[in-house]
Amino acid sequence: MERGMMKRQYRDVVVWDAERTAAERCDVITEGDRITSILPAGTLDSGCAYEGRGKMALIPGFVNAHGHAAMTLLRGLGEELPLMEWLQERIWPVENGLDGDLVKAGTKLAILEMLSTGTTCFADMYFFMDRVAEAALECGMRCGLSRGIVGDSDGSKLKENLKLADDFNGRDGLINVQLGPHAPYTVPMELMKEIANTAKDTGLGVQLHWLETSSEWSISGLEGKMTPEDYLAETGMIDVPNLLLAHCVWIRPQESAFYARDNVTFAHNPKSNLKLGSGIAPLPAYLKAGVRVALGTDGAASNNRLDIWDELRFAALTQKGVNKDPTLVASAEALRMATVNGAIGLGFRDVGLIKEGYRADMILIDLDQPHYVGWDCENLSGFLVYAGSSSDVKGTVVAGKMLYQDGDFVFADRKRITEEAAEARRKLTAR
Amino acid sequence: MERGMMKRQYRDVVVWDAERTAAERCDVITEGDRITSILPAGTLDSGCAYEGRGKMALIPGFVNAHGHAAMTLLRGLGEELPLMEWLQERIWPVENGLDGDLVKAGTKLAILEMLSTGTTCFADMYFFMDRVAEAALECGMRCGLSRGIVGDSDGSKLKENLKLADDFNGRDGLINVQLGPHAPYTVPMELMKEIANTAKDTGLGVQLHWLETSSEWSISGLEGKMTPEDYLAETGMIDVPNLLLAHCVWIRPQESAFYARDNVTFAHNPKSNLKLGSGIAPLPAYLKAGVRVALGTDGAASNNRLDIWDELRFAALTQKGVNKDPTLVASAEALRMATVNGAIGLGFRDVGLIKEGYRADMILIDLDQPHYVGWDCENLSGFLVYAGSSSDVKGTVVAGKMLYQDGDFVFADRKRITEEAAEARRKLTAR
Repeated sequence: MERGMMKRQYRDVVVWDAERTAAERCDVITEGDRITSILPAGTLDSGCAYEGRGKMALIPGFVNAHGHAAMTLLRGLGEELPLMEWLQERIWPVENGLDGDLVKAGTKLAILEMLSTGTTCFADMYFFMDRVAEAALECGMRCGLSRGIVGDSDGSKLKENLKLADDFNGRDGLINVQLGPHAPYTVPMELMKEIANTAKDTGLGVQLHWLETSSEWSISGLEGKMTPEDYLAETGMIDVPNLLLAHCVWIRPQESAFYARDNVTFAHNPKSNLKLGSGIAPLPAYLKAGVRVALGTDGAASNNRLDIWDELRFAALTQKGVNKDPTLVASAEALRMATVNGAIGLGFRDVGLIKEGYRADMILIDLDQPHYVGWDCENLSGFLVYAGSSSDVKGTVVAGKMLYQDGDFVFADRKRITEEAAEARRKLTAR
Repeated sequence: MERGMMKRQYRDVVVWDAERTAAERCDVITEGDRITSILPAGTLDSGCAYEGRGKMALIPGFVNAHGHAAMTLLRGLGEELPLMEWLQERIWPVENGLDGDLVKAGTKLAILEMLSTGTTCFADMYFFMDRVAEAALECGMRCGLSRGIVGDSDGSKLKENLKLADDFNGRDGLINVQLGPHAPYTVPMELMKEIANTAKDTGLGVQLHWLETSSEWSISGLEGKMTPEDYLAETGMIDVPNLLLAHCVWIRPQESAFYARDNVTFAHNPKSNLKLGSGIAPLPAYLKAGVRVALGTDGAASNNRLDIWDELRFAALTQKGVNKDPTLVASAEALRMATVNGAIGLGFRDVGLIKEGYRADMILIDLDQPHYVGWDCENLSGFLVYAGSSSDVKGTVVAGKMLYQDGDFVFADRKRITEEAAEARRKLTAR
């Protein structure tokens, strides 16, 4: 252990993660950015530790596996419009006014919201990504970042994405950089092949929008020429080191098995898919086939919260109702999606579990509240997913540091960030 | 105005209700349990008033139009089981152990949760309803109460329901009593007719479960004999003074117009219907036909939150996704469902709007938060429904009294109520 490395102790907390069938009261020690010891509850002396009194859950922080953080600045613009009208008349014109400073301001606003709702790591595909990286590093937040690549006839965006990797991949142990081809209908097939080859050469992961709307495949001009699965095979995308496919609403259920591979993760965005009228993903088929599925919020303009508790609840409940089967998408499965699955999808293989040697990305949840009456170590995951909410989060720890505690941001100036974002919003929407 | 009547002032709050197209900064005065003046913001002197600084919304309190409050004690029992197994093996055996004290303890726990999430009035159909009434009166909460009538070969439950009305209808201006025939499949048709006649004679409203599951009509033995609409006509139910139909998942959309009557309200319970696998109500058809639709949580065992913000979001988003149409169920419409529509459904014709002469049932919502950056008076309803959450509620006012403020319950002992409920839960589940 490095000398002077920060050590923190959590005493008598109720530990749960996706590898446990039941929760367990434990003492947990972190040193630097790692979890180093998990001991029986009460082993540690009181006084020198955060005290959970058996009424504070400690679970892995949530991973928001798909989003566009700076879109917090576009929240609420053009609600309830048909998709193309919304994009063409309300979103794109405003997005065109974004610059690096505005993107950084919007990203910091997003980080406030994510930290306070228990998210410790987020995926981002947008532009001015160096400024997104700055924002994340300044706040101490973990993330997987990609430069959204659209068109790109001169290759400048792919170059920018590779520069992002050169500059920020692995920085402070917090950032993984992915390549970000936007979607099959916005990226020419030859470029998609080039990006897949680049990913294989560099070892970088890929973030890709995948079959979000029912018309997407026909818009891409590929319908009738090849299946989506053939396309992934032919471009080489299916073989890149780490492929994170966002949305996945319109994969044919019978093709699910094709995607059940260790290098592939789906980012399921239930609320965004509902709000935009995109549809409802056949999630039970994916899970049954063994696909690794994570959860994401998408951007705040189409959600409109960056709150994984909402996604947990929508993922778990919607499928039960649509399929008229209350046994589908159990709470523990939803929590697995929201934690370790998203971490793997972003290339963090040591994030998302409360386990010795894993990164100390964790949240503290206050169980001493009216809506938790009746919880026990066997039923905790159900109470969290069905009865809990983001306001139960009393602490958010990223890489061993408590970044949010009891309503306060430890390394971020809430007032200043909020005011700067409000000013950015005014600028953007005044144009 | 009665002498000595309590007067309260709210200065520079952002007022919205379902009758306004845009929000407006106002000063609001309440006297006793009524809203008496709505003035331009800044008319009142500061110092003697609650200060909103133009950053605190004041909207009508939410009405939870269907539920079984004391089921907070059954929360989390038997998650993710098929419906009949859940009811027969986990819920009914425990419910059989309920007594008046336990029901009161569970109801108070429910009231804590509802007040803290902005609900000012709740519907309840359960048993030991006199104890539910006591709990509500002790907490100062508005409600519509009915004794759930099942079977009832000796008429004792209807008698009990009428005694509830004698004892509590109109008490403290807070309670309306309804008759509570459970459902067509649990109440003989002759008794249903008798209850309809009793409602007409007494002027009492009726709460009735209606077509919650797809098999309900066939279970009732009525399939092939008459349509659900014929049944309501033949029993006389459709003509009772105030008919609140809970769930309404399986009404045929083309029959919607039949229900568009001033004396009929639907209580839509989107989360419970999803969680139990009951299905998804054709809400857009109901709204298009002009049916008055309210929102409810159902009991905490099948939701598992008593939080209308969740219902708002599920009501608004689910229909957009299922119908692949982002224009459906606009935010203002969802808020109308959550406020004035529920109030009318429970027979309170002067509740649910911020209007002079209306009862002062209101909530204060803190807009000075990261996720509200970008709100304005035109888009407030969208921010509330899509970006807001129950943790934004900073004050809950019922009948002019601030019952919950900044995390504290003014007339309820949170610690004692929670401990008593926990003890009640232990007793119930130990049997």
